[in-house]
Amino acid sequence: MKQPSIKYLFEPRGVAVIGASRNKNKIGYKLVQNIVSGKFNGRIYPVNPKGGRILGLKIYKTVNEIEGIIDLACIAIPAEFVFDAVKECAKKGVKFLVVITSGFSEIGNIKEEHEIVSFAREHGMRVLGPNIFGIYSRNSMLNATFGQKDINPGNVAIITQSGALGIAMMGRTKTENIGLSAMVSVGNKSDIDESDLLEYLVSNRETRVVMIYIEGVKNGERFVRVMKESTKKKPVVVIKAGKSKRGAMAAASHTGSLAGADEIFSDIMKQCGVMRAETVNQAFDWCKFLAASPLPKGENTVIITNGGGIGVMAADACEKYNVTLYDDFEVMRKIFADSVPSFGSVKNPIDITGQATAAEYERALDVALHNKKIHSIICLGCETAVLNSDELSTTIDNFVNKNKGKKPFIFSFIGGPSFQKVIDGLKHEGIPVFSNVDDAISCFGAMYADYKNKKLKTTLSNYLGPEELGMNLNRIKKIINSVKRDNRAFFMSHEAQELMRAACIDVPKLYIATSMKEAAEYAEKIGYPVVLKVVSKDIIHKSDVGGVILSLGNKNEVLDAYEVIVHNCKRNMPNAKIEGIEISEMISSGSEVILGARRDNSFGPIVMFGLGGVYVEVMKDVAFRAFPLRKREAWDMIKETKTYRLLLGVRGENRKDIKSVVYTLLKLGIIVKTFKEISDIEINPLKVFDKGDYKKGEGVNAVDVRILLSNPVRG
Amino acid sequence: MKQPSIKYLFEPRGVAVIGASRNKNKIGYKLVQNIVSGKFNGRIYPVNPKGGRILGLKIYKTVNEIEGIIDLACIAIPAEFVFDAVKECAKKGVKFLVVITSGFSEIGNIKEEHEIVSFAREHGMRVLGPNIFGIYSRNSMLNATFGQKDINPGNVAIITQSGALGIAMMGRTKTENIGLSAMVSVGNKSDIDESDLLEYLVSNRETRVVMIYIEGVKNGERFVRVMKESTKKKPVVVIKAGKSKRGAMAAASHTGSLAGADEIFSDIMKQCGVMRAETVNQAFDWCKFLAASPLPKGENTVIITNGGGIGVMAADACEKYNVTLYDDFEVMRKIFADSVPSFGSVKNPIDITGQATAAEYERALDVALHNKKIHSIICLGCETAVLNSDELSTTIDNFVNKNKGKKPFIFSFIGGPSFQKVIDGLKHEGIPVFSNVDDAISCFGAMYADYKNKKLKTTLSNYLGPEELGMNLNRIKKIINSVKRDNRAFFMSHEAQELMRAACIDVPKLYIATSMKEAAEYAEKIGYPVVLKVVSKDIIHKSDVGGVILSLGNKNEVLDAYEVIVHNCKRNMPNAKIEGIEISEMISSGSEVILGARRDNSFGPIVMFGLGGVYVEVMKDVAFRAFPLRKREAWDMIKETKTYRLLLGVRGENRKDIKSVVYTLLKLGIIVKTFKEISDIEINPLKVFDKGDYKKGEGVNAVDVRILLSNPVRG
Repeated sequence: MKQPSIKYLFEPRGVAVIGASRNKNKIGYKLVQNIVSGKFNGRIYPVNPKGGRILGLKIYKTVNEIEGIIDLACIAIPAEFVFDAVKECAKKGVKFLVVITSGFSEIGNIKEEHEIVSFAREHGMRVLGPNIFGIYSRNSMLNATFGQKDINPGNVAIITQSGALGIAMMGRTKTENIGLSAMVSVGNKSDIDESDLLEYLVSNRETRVVMIYIEGVKNGERFVRVMKESTKKKPVVVIKAGKSKRGAMAAASHTGSLAGADEIFSDIMKQCGVMRAETVNQAFDWCKFLAASPLPKGENTVIITNGGGIGVMAADACEKYNVTLYDDFEVMRKIFADSVPSFGSVKNPIDITGQATAAEYERALDVALHNKKIHSIICLGCETAVLNSDELSTTIDNFVNKNKGKKPFIFSFIGGPSFQKVIDGLKHEGIPVFSNVDDAISCFGAMYADYKNKKLKTTLSNYLGPEELGMNLNRIKKIINSVKRDNRAFFMSHEAQELMRAACIDVPKLYIATSMKEAAEYAEKIGYPVVLKVVSKDIIHKSDVGGVILSLGNKNEVLDAYEVIVHNCKRNMPNAKIEGIEISEMISSGSEVILGARRDNSFGPIVMFGLGGVYVEVMKDVAFRAFPLRKREAWDMIKETKTYRLLLGVRGENRKDIKSVVYTLLKLGIIVKTFKEISDIEINPLKVFDKGDYKKGEGVNAVDVRILLSNPVRG
Repeated sequence: MKQPSIKYLFEPRGVAVIGASRNKNKIGYKLVQNIVSGKFNGRIYPVNPKGGRILGLKIYKTVNEIEGIIDLACIAIPAEFVFDAVKECAKKGVKFLVVITSGFSEIGNIKEEHEIVSFAREHGMRVLGPNIFGIYSRNSMLNATFGQKDINPGNVAIITQSGALGIAMMGRTKTENIGLSAMVSVGNKSDIDESDLLEYLVSNRETRVVMIYIEGVKNGERFVRVMKESTKKKPVVVIKAGKSKRGAMAAASHTGSLAGADEIFSDIMKQCGVMRAETVNQAFDWCKFLAASPLPKGENTVIITNGGGIGVMAADACEKYNVTLYDDFEVMRKIFADSVPSFGSVKNPIDITGQATAAEYERALDVALHNKKIHSIICLGCETAVLNSDELSTTIDNFVNKNKGKKPFIFSFIGGPSFQKVIDGLKHEGIPVFSNVDDAISCFGAMYADYKNKKLKTTLSNYLGPEELGMNLNRIKKIINSVKRDNRAFFMSHEAQELMRAACIDVPKLYIATSMKEAAEYAEKIGYPVVLKVVSKDIIHKSDVGGVILSLGNKNEVLDAYEVIVHNCKRNMPNAKIEGIEISEMISSGSEVILGARRDNSFGPIVMFGLGGVYVEVMKDVAFRAFPLRKREAWDMIKETKTYRLLLGVRGENRKDIKSVVYTLLKLGIIVKTFKEISDIEINPLKVFDKGDYKKGEGVNAVDVRILLSNPVRG
């Protein structure tokens, strides 16, 4: 059945509160109270079989009794009665069910939750929750929550998976003086999730920034797609708990969803242009700043300071948060000459020295504001004997009021009670001022991340399809089917090679010999040195049984090795069926990297790149991305690793063929995305050479390939 | 001449203020004012040639006029008059000169500063500064600064290299309600530095924790020694700016000292047991907490929370800050059974659920406090509909007051205005409560770092000397001298090998042949495969001219290679004098690591360990330590790297001989420490085998060794 537009969740014409109560300790009272006192601009219909009146409103005994349109029904009755209420709502044509009630999948009651959602969707309704504290929407002045009563309207939208933390955060918006455009509790995410909500919020004019507290991702492919689109338009800040093993354990025990591996989550957020905050406070700082500041026109930032030490700390923080300090010293020397004494510094940080009064601050700020080569300003101050706090306060206040919206600026001051007064006073005026330099500059970091997201928008490359990459999907399908017919969960190495060739990825030359004579012939054909390996479905760890011999330099060595391998295998695994001996080319040049693709529980198909060989496990220098993946995103992923420097060529080596690595990554992703039977592909090592034609699969060589099929039980 | 005890700097019997002024805008006025209003418990002698009276005190026209004892003279007169004043002080038997005046080495006036210090020390005086804002000492109630007037006396000592930031931090102690035992501005550190001050502060009963803001280290060897001793007794918190390249540049331009490479600094602080704070705020949080909290009796921490999300974030933070969560679930199940409802969690975090009222908090806190297996408590709360903020406040207040000093606890609450009131109120009582979970837990991290420092005290191993390590220092001396006689700054590889052998470090077998016949003989003696390299003082980059051939497997290959190398070198570097051809053993087994030792500008002899081979530059997985170095410290250094896992054995390999790596590190350090002529030694790769006898230099093999002598110009 056709689903209602998400608009009606945020802008309902009529709201029913099922479970409205006259008992002031009940959620059913608090909900009606908040909706009424929030001055909701639609109709309110309290529902309770007992009837009566509440806060001047009639209580309806049933939903059916209500005459007006109900776009949204809040359900706050015991779990066992929820399904019946949902059925009543269906009859009445309700569009959105906001199920406050808990006691569903979060305590193992999964079936009931599924049934309610299926029923709802069959009847054209969608479900928010269950196990939530409600929804606030500035657009309709709807505060259908049992949290904070008097919400500041503003431009920050918050989505939260945790109820308790959500209510507390709603409270914190009051003390931090942050205005909300929306606040949505998603709880068990039985139906509506972050992606649905983002679609609305990104197009909502009141919302300038979206903050999401998330514990686990469901339907990750859609999440990634929506996030990518959203961040091109508005900054999205995410807080995710469950980084540590213990944290992840606690998260899993407390909600219905599994926290995905944190590194993967973090990398994919980078891919999506989402900013991940370390703490709730940081997320609040960023959102408050981003909701109010103009976007910069470029990346040249200057620091103005009266103290060297605090300037150095600010420069450190700029590096940490990727804020670019303007470094044309000649220009700065000219423009700041009059505002900086000779013993100061006109390099960046601009040190107007401990002798500076408010007047020097004013001069330096004005110069920085009016110079077009400077795009954003960080202004710092230490309490000194000559810097009068009242004058400073007035100067900053005037400067900001006169120049609001012209350029982004941020302030940080450190000192005693009189300076704390400056900070508190300016903060109250909505001026971005911090007692901690690091906090201030982290906001600039968030702003520039947003700036880059928006700038990138026009320069993104397209997605490449299998044809453009020279992949033969039919052939791949056939190879997979032949393995499946054999009831195996793993590919033998020659099968994996075949699949690689079908995907247009070079592999070492390889033949399977069933006699010593053949082995010698193949070795000659390949050229020395060669590697010999046993071929047997029964032997998975070939090295362990003496089934692999490397670096064979001539015919005699090959013949000897053949005999030795057969002998070893017969002795160590007498029951293994030996199907032959693999003779393959030995690739000795090239840098070793690892490439992987798999189906992630949260995100679906993901790819991995990193340092290969034995160092994978030691260095763990890997990066992840979700699919679909653009060429450019794959490049960024490679650049993020230290291994990138290896590919640029170390110790006088040539630059390696990174382009071919990018294409190989895309190919692996497409395989996993297309063929659901495949759970994992790993190439380790992939040898990367100086150059090659990626359209022929050259430039790289997949020396060792492991392919696993999904566990039939799971798949 | 005998130097005065540092005690008189902090507890002077009489203080002269040279440059005392009746002009209220002058530093000379502010100083006298602060000393008077701070109720200094010794005598005050203002000095100014104009004479008169100030704040009820006689102004002496000269220092000579003063009759009482002057232990300390504050000098706040223009730079050109400072030396004369110092000479007057010498006559009077002054012990400490606190030179407030700026205009010395920080602006290039280095000579004058040196002369003053030399003169002072010759006359039994020591110098604090110049370029400082003064000193505060609680012990004598001396506030000889031109900063904050009314300082809270307390237990935190602060040493600062930055003046502006120092004054501002002094102010911040007021707003943060932090009590000071001392505050010392060290400025240019012309004489007295952090090490001198620590000696006093660590034995000072009023001081419970020391905080140092540092930009660059001078006399690093002593600094390391003093730091190591200090942290065994009291926690030392360091803030160092100049992490980023730009920051380091700014730091260098603003003080006289160079900021050492940040990674080295960070590693050496770890070695010393110093806690490095990321920001000023963090340092303040830690110091305030450490000054007030009891030490825990063990590492079992529990988290009590009413919100899952905040609990997960806390668990993440515990991992980040090395706080160990108690994990005996059986014990926790028993002890928390009565205070946690069935839908909560008795795993750690203990989730008393969103239904918890203040009474449940009280119950859970009491249980945790009284159980001996639990050593410290983190208590978190989210605002909920049922948790009354006033009740919560009273509960926490009573709990803390009743149980002060019994166990460490820390609180963090999140919510709206009523919860902010709880936080502000409890904070005012001196209870450690934070609005940010991460900040709270970082304090526990600092506490446990201190706990471990103190625990380690008794278990540290001794320093090992060259004899115990089988080193022949006389032999090493001779080898160095022969290179020096040759006027070379680098060792040839056979010389480096000789030195290694003298230091009892295994090297590949190596001979130098001057004929093909000899080459063949040596190769047979060594055993195949071998490596051939040209020997020539004129050829430093041997590979580049075709002077190296690896993996030679038999006599004929050796003979061919000999000819090829000679031919290549003659063609590519016709003027190079070829002294012979090196024939050496090829070591193909073993893990590759890098070891280094060098003389650091700040810290003196330091050693390095990390991943070897081509990956050094790519992965930069290295750790540093300063000398002297205990065996145990070298182990910790290795453990800090990812490379450690490589040495533990990957993919079924055996564990490598880490002990021999430790001893090799100690040997390298001893060489650099003993022989000042050597500036750098680097072994890359050092091959590490499964086992060996380190006393014979076995277990490792120094395949490639580079030794550089100090630049004769510098040395």
